Amino acid sequence: MVGRPRGQLLLAADAVVAGVHADLALVGLDDLGWKAMAVNVSDLAAMGGTPTHALVTLAGPLAEMDFDLLYDGLTEAADAYRCPLVGGDLSAAPVLVVAVAVAGDGAGPGRPVLRSGAHPGDTVFVTGPLGASAAGLELLRAGRAAEAPSLVAAHRRPQARVVEGATARACGATAMIDVSDGLAVDLRRLATASGVGVVLEAVPVAAGVEKATDDVEAMALGGGEDYELVFTSALRSRVDDAFSAAGLRRPLVIGRCTEDPSERRLRDGPLPRLGWEHTW
Amino acid sequence: MVGRPRGQLLLAADAVVAGVHADLALVGLDDLGWKAMAVNVSDLAAMGGTPTHALVTLAGPLAEMDFDLLYDGLTEAADAYRCPLVGGDLSAAPVLVVAVAVAGDGAGPGRPVLRSGAHPGDTVFVTGPLGASAAGLELLRAGRAAEAPSLVAAHRRPQARVVEGATARACGATAMIDVSDGLAVDLRRLATASGVGVVLEAVPVAAGVEKATDDVEAMALGGGEDYELVFTSALRSRVDDAFSAAGLRRPLVIGRCTEDPSERRLRDGPLPRLGWEHTW
Repeated sequence: MVGRPRGQLLLAADAVVAGVHADLALVGLDDLGWKAMAVNVSDLAAMGGTPTHALVTLAGPLAEMDFDLLYDGLTEAADAYRCPLVGGDLSAAPVLVVAVAVAGDGAGPGRPVLRSGAHPGDTVFVTGPLGASAAGLELLRAGRAAEAPSLVAAHRRPQARVVEGATARACGATAMIDVSDGLAVDLRRLATASGVGVVLEAVPVAAGVEKATDDVEAMALGGGEDYELVFTSALRSRVDDAFSAAGLRRPLVIGRCTEDPSERRLRDGPLPRLGWEHTW
Repeated sequence: MVGRPRGQLLLAADAVVAGVHADLALVGLDDLGWKAMAVNVSDLAAMGGTPTHALVTLAGPLAEMDFDLLYDGLTEAADAYRCPLVGGDLSAAPVLVVAVAVAGDGAGPGRPVLRSGAHPGDTVFVTGPLGASAAGLELLRAGRAAEAPSLVAAHRRPQARVVEGATARACGATAMIDVSDGLAVDLRRLATASGVGVVLEAVPVAAGVEKATDDVEAMALGGGEDYELVFTSALRSRVDDAFSAAGLRRPLVIGRCTEDPSERRLRDGPLPRLGWEHTW
């Protein structure tokens, strides 16, 4: 029993599986807990919604794991995003699965933003440069974490862009998605859901990614887990003004939506198939 | 974005893990899917709430399993309880974990019922006799399923008591819990949350349980997974009238709440420690 939302009820659920979404040889259980919350909060941020409550279902080898540490990460994120843990479940299982569901309030100016509302001619924005999380993971794997603490932090403690999502919604975003599986994949999803074509004209790469790879653009396109928001709008100057007024970094213009719903272009060539796709 | 509840927002989350909560050598993937939904709906039923939306997070060996069959069971239960699946997530994992979260509407007469509202002197009711699910599992294990199809069905397709929960709430139930881990354990939880003692005077045993065990009372007390509702009320005749008026089986009187918060009694002896308890 958790109060009554002012606007539409928003719901999202996402799981983090040890060994699949997080390598516990490289990140802590607290990081895994943080991530499980942050990815769910990010799902609501991508609608322009406000997270209000979280449910956490843990399944794992209860006797062998430091669940206090896992809960530390979950509650740190719950505090950071003002999204209290209000219930859940705990089960024995041979592998650690942290399944989080979040409820959110869709109140705000306009309606919650979907993936499906982009129009031909809309500008495509992203709230920040990409590739930092994948680069951080690469450096962790190579035992070079000390070389770029900010990249490692981007991997261990991804940030959900709640204020950015609300701002994009308030200034007329037509469609929005978070970069979880990689810019190329997630942008395809937005374009497909909207029935538009898309031309990606720029791929903003996070500072330092070159320490982890020779092909920084591929890492920014396909690395995933950045949790920046990609959104579309016809109102370019209104977007700039709204983000500035909110004290936020100005979103980066990366492309445009086109008439041909089959068009998926990166500059002059095809948009590469990079990123994480579910295969069934 | 799933509408706005009329009353308080209710949330619950519960997972079913293959090999822990369901033995796939004995029950189908469709049964596992049904159960994952039903146990969550039951959590809301125990508040007297109405389920409205479900999120399903599946983690499992994607290539090796018949997920269509699993979804069949999930959607059959979603249809039966009018609780549509509105989202979720799918991940690779070495073991099958079906984590469901449900949102519900707490609208109705009075407030949603918690575990913590029982008073000394309240009568303890249960919505039906117990032990059928555990007996069905026992018969399945023994290869004797054909001897008692109704017990096997109780195990494979547990029923959440949504109408019973709403009726108990409407007629003034002070506290309520569903029998998931076993009557003895769940009744202790209710008494502890309410700060009352409890004397269990009768243990109603489901028909046919004697086919599976010599100690039918132990199976009814500790078998669990019955999903009948245990509730307390000072208004015994009002409870009977309300359930009759709703066309429901009259709840069974099984005991009473007492003043001494440490009292946990079964007739003249201590309430046995039977059932499934989380050990940390």
